[in-house]
Amino acid sequence: MIIGGVAAGPKTAATLARRLKGASITLFQKEEMISYATCGMPYFASGDIDTFGKLNETSYEVPRDVDFFRKTKGFEVVTGAEVTAIDREKKTVTVRLHSSGETIEHGYGKLIIATGSDANKPPFPVAESPLISQFKRPEDAIAFRKAAQQGQVGKTVIVGAGLIGCELAEACTAMWGIETVLVEREKQLLPYVLDPDMSAIAEREVRRQDVELRLGAEVSEIKLDDDGSPVVILSGGESISADYVFLCLGVHPVTALAKDAGLAIGDTGGISVNTRMQTSDPDIYAGGDCVESYNLITGKSIYMPMGSLANRHGRVIAENLAGNDCEFRGVVGAFLVKIFDLNVGAVGLSQGVAETAGIKAVSVWGSFPDKPDYYPEFSTMSLKMTYDPEGGRLLGLQAVGRGDICRRVDVFSSFLQRNGTLEDLLDFEQGYAPPYSEALDPLHNLASVTAARKRGCVFISPNSDHPRDAIYLDVREPEEVSSEPWPSSEGIELLNIPLNDLRDRIGELDSGRKICIVCRRGPRSYQAAVILQQAGFDNVVLIGGGTQAALS
Amino acid sequence: MIIGGVAAGPKTAATLARRLKGASITLFQKEEMISYATCGMPYFASGDIDTFGKLNETSYEVPRDVDFFRKTKGFEVVTGAEVTAIDREKKTVTVRLHSSGETIEHGYGKLIIATGSDANKPPFPVAESPLISQFKRPEDAIAFRKAAQQGQVGKTVIVGAGLIGCELAEACTAMWGIETVLVEREKQLLPYVLDPDMSAIAEREVRRQDVELRLGAEVSEIKLDDDGSPVVILSGGESISADYVFLCLGVHPVTALAKDAGLAIGDTGGISVNTRMQTSDPDIYAGGDCVESYNLITGKSIYMPMGSLANRHGRVIAENLAGNDCEFRGVVGAFLVKIFDLNVGAVGLSQGVAETAGIKAVSVWGSFPDKPDYYPEFSTMSLKMTYDPEGGRLLGLQAVGRGDICRRVDVFSSFLQRNGTLEDLLDFEQGYAPPYSEALDPLHNLASVTAARKRGCVFISPNSDHPRDAIYLDVREPEEVSSEPWPSSEGIELLNIPLNDLRDRIGELDSGRKICIVCRRGPRSYQAAVILQQAGFDNVVLIGGGTQAALS
Repeated sequence: MIIGGVAAGPKTAATLARRLKGASITLFQKEEMISYATCGMPYFASGDIDTFGKLNETSYEVPRDVDFFRKTKGFEVVTGAEVTAIDREKKTVTVRLHSSGETIEHGYGKLIIATGSDANKPPFPVAESPLISQFKRPEDAIAFRKAAQQGQVGKTVIVGAGLIGCELAEACTAMWGIETVLVEREKQLLPYVLDPDMSAIAEREVRRQDVELRLGAEVSEIKLDDDGSPVVILSGGESISADYVFLCLGVHPVTALAKDAGLAIGDTGGISVNTRMQTSDPDIYAGGDCVESYNLITGKSIYMPMGSLANRHGRVIAENLAGNDCEFRGVVGAFLVKIFDLNVGAVGLSQGVAETAGIKAVSVWGSFPDKPDYYPEFSTMSLKMTYDPEGGRLLGLQAVGRGDICRRVDVFSSFLQRNGTLEDLLDFEQGYAPPYSEALDPLHNLASVTAARKRGCVFISPNSDHPRDAIYLDVREPEEVSSEPWPSSEGIELLNIPLNDLRDRIGELDSGRKICIVCRRGPRSYQAAVILQQAGFDNVVLIGGGTQAALS
Repeated sequence: MIIGGVAAGPKTAATLARRLKGASITLFQKEEMISYATCGMPYFASGDIDTFGKLNETSYEVPRDVDFFRKTKGFEVVTGAEVTAIDREKKTVTVRLHSSGETIEHGYGKLIIATGSDANKPPFPVAESPLISQFKRPEDAIAFRKAAQQGQVGKTVIVGAGLIGCELAEACTAMWGIETVLVEREKQLLPYVLDPDMSAIAEREVRRQDVELRLGAEVSEIKLDDDGSPVVILSGGESISADYVFLCLGVHPVTALAKDAGLAIGDTGGISVNTRMQTSDPDIYAGGDCVESYNLITGKSIYMPMGSLANRHGRVIAENLAGNDCEFRGVVGAFLVKIFDLNVGAVGLSQGVAETAGIKAVSVWGSFPDKPDYYPEFSTMSLKMTYDPEGGRLLGLQAVGRGDICRRVDVFSSFLQRNGTLEDLLDFEQGYAPPYSEALDPLHNLASVTAARKRGCVFISPNSDHPRDAIYLDVREPEEVSSEPWPSSEGIELLNIPLNDLRDRIGELDSGRKICIVCRRGPRSYQAAVILQQAGFDNVVLIGGGTQAALS
């Protein structure tokens, strides 16, 4: 018996029905709708997806409903059926049927809890209104889409710039032309996923797309004005009126049933499971957004609600129930999110998260084309790689750009999952042909750069406070410098010497001063730093990722 | 001292110059041009790349010439300098300077051989003509581009449908509208890289693009007609006239110098090197297209001339020369090639290559969207995965389609490099968001399918001789069937029962006959097979990859 019908529940049931002929499988789902793609909701809200039904359909346009699960998948689904209690001794659950109001008892041999997640309650007062939405249930997406389509939303405020908040900012502006304010308590987008210096690249994109970004802004209250329109009050007293407000404050695991039944709950608030996805009661398994995960890098618990993990949990549970021995070893934390025309991804630990976890970590940066420069239509990306400077163990990758970042996030993930090192990355054999890649992958180049760092090259972040009282040696060609100049400011002296002239013109540089090298993507700065180092300069730093990461 | 200036040579020299301050590094290059992107030549020929100079330029448009290598990279290059002999005892090389005709001797401490590859000599007589080209040297690409641009090429014959042959077929037709005949001795495109059933998908695309494909066709001679135009004579006697003929018969390592110096040559004809890229003389290293590689999967030698490997060789050689201990462990064989609008890739062993190598192997197939079906603008791909049915060790992946195959080839490559298994693949944590991926990656699904195979599901190739005297049970929706019907032929009976109706209509099937299940991509056939198996049918097979792989 299975509680919960969005992702992990149906996946478990369908796999189990294939594995165990004649097994009696019943799935109870509180809501009427079942097996819909929650991750697709922002793209329904944006209008990219025509109807909500698409999110609840197979690829061949058959709705995934009770009939489908019975006839195609071979198990029973009861919708509008809320499980209110688990009796582990009697091995029964209590189910309230919404349609009849009736309450029934239902026995189980093995029970699977897949109760999912719920939106976090705001830590400030919020007025009751259909115009203030947590964008968690299908109804939320449908209501907003209707209002937007009918032209009722001229302005929206999104509180929380996590994954969903960023996706909604794009949905509001790109398709509907809604004036949008994105408010975030932290001083960056996607906190915990990105370091602030990589978020900065996405922030510039979001601002270019005319979203008003309010970072480091605390909301103190959301109330309604006399017309019933929402007003977001910031802690400084400022108020922002809007036609629609989204609260995207993250989610938490739904564990009341599990808690009441006395099952162990982890430090992160999710249900504790072992690698077989078993709870503290061996007859009860749990998967999806209601469980906590084991982070393979930190060795600690992490709460990571993701549709992709839920599906993998479902398979593991089903295999174990079918008598096979199957493990879910843990997670490394792979994320992707599209923010307007930028692809944004991360896997593993950011520099900030590593430091918080007490793990020794350093980072290098680089910007890269995703194909050779000579090939038409290449795009670029900026990467930041975090690793242990002692053993060379890989810790994390962050990627932002228009280029093909998914490939690098996925490859890096596979290395993280096996405790990969810089040496492994250098040894990586990528697919290569000019329409798809350069002869050396960005990951090879990042790993090479760490060797330079070890030999004393000082890399600094493209988006943080840059040194003052320094010579900024720009080694780009004059045309590049004039089309995208390094911003001048007090205390810095700008000097342009194209890389190829540096050995000849090295006398123009004062070796007593700090020299901060700038180029477009990073490699020229690296070569310039070597030239200066070999010439005896010892106060040289270079801006990782170049102007591509620092200005674009 | 370094012999050879295309990829491995300059990479070694540049890395070494950064590592070892004050090292005296001289590179001898036989030709005048140095450090050009040979892999980009087909895209110059096609017109996608404006000038040949682009292939010899940095991303900031500075030519990579003698001046560049001296001033930016810090080493000496002598072009037009052909090394004719190596004296290992005296540690000198003999160099003939093309400009002066002079011959000099040059001492070395450590020597690096990066002499590259040369086009294979045709095994049939070929007339001497500028209109018959091996497309190996820059001059070859430049001459063809000029002729095409001036409208002198109405028809071309390409002999050899390997990577370059396929790229040239696209270059000729897509940009220049040249009538093109692609002749290949084997009965498929890309022999050894793809199995014939995956090649079949690419063959349909090539034919759709109006290239005339002559597979299994042996050339007996290429001569000139009275006008001096080339004529390709096939072994059957048929002759094909053309304005231009390309001979793309593969390449072999250039090893005369190494051989004459008594260095060990491997079974494949490439120079033997250890994991440090050292030849049999510890003072001589070799890298790039002139060496043979160690195949990590078969444990045998393989000749794999690739620009990406050459660059990695260069780094390894330089690190070792700089006193670090650095290994090139071997290759798994990752390939990508664009064939018109199809992305084609492979890594590891095909089913055919595995069998030839005496490795026990089986394969499964699947077709997949590269994003969720509900997301606008997804593309599809068909994959074939080869693995050891006993230990579950991964052996190879082949991928063909318009979808994002690079990501899967790269990830699979990283698993192959560490001797990964099906379990590892199931445990892979991919980046997930609807604009980039499905909740389960195609690689997860392929690995899952192997479990079904183990439980007795019989998968058959989408493109091979399909069973006759069978019921073809098409479980697609009626609209799908009518828009892309399974081809009817003698001895087969077509029956359409949409998957969702199969349990109800199972009585219509004769359990005594062979039942061959068809759907669009594979998953529905798999579910249908389970339904039939559980109902006691025991002569059921399903077509891997569905109509997507078999017909599109």
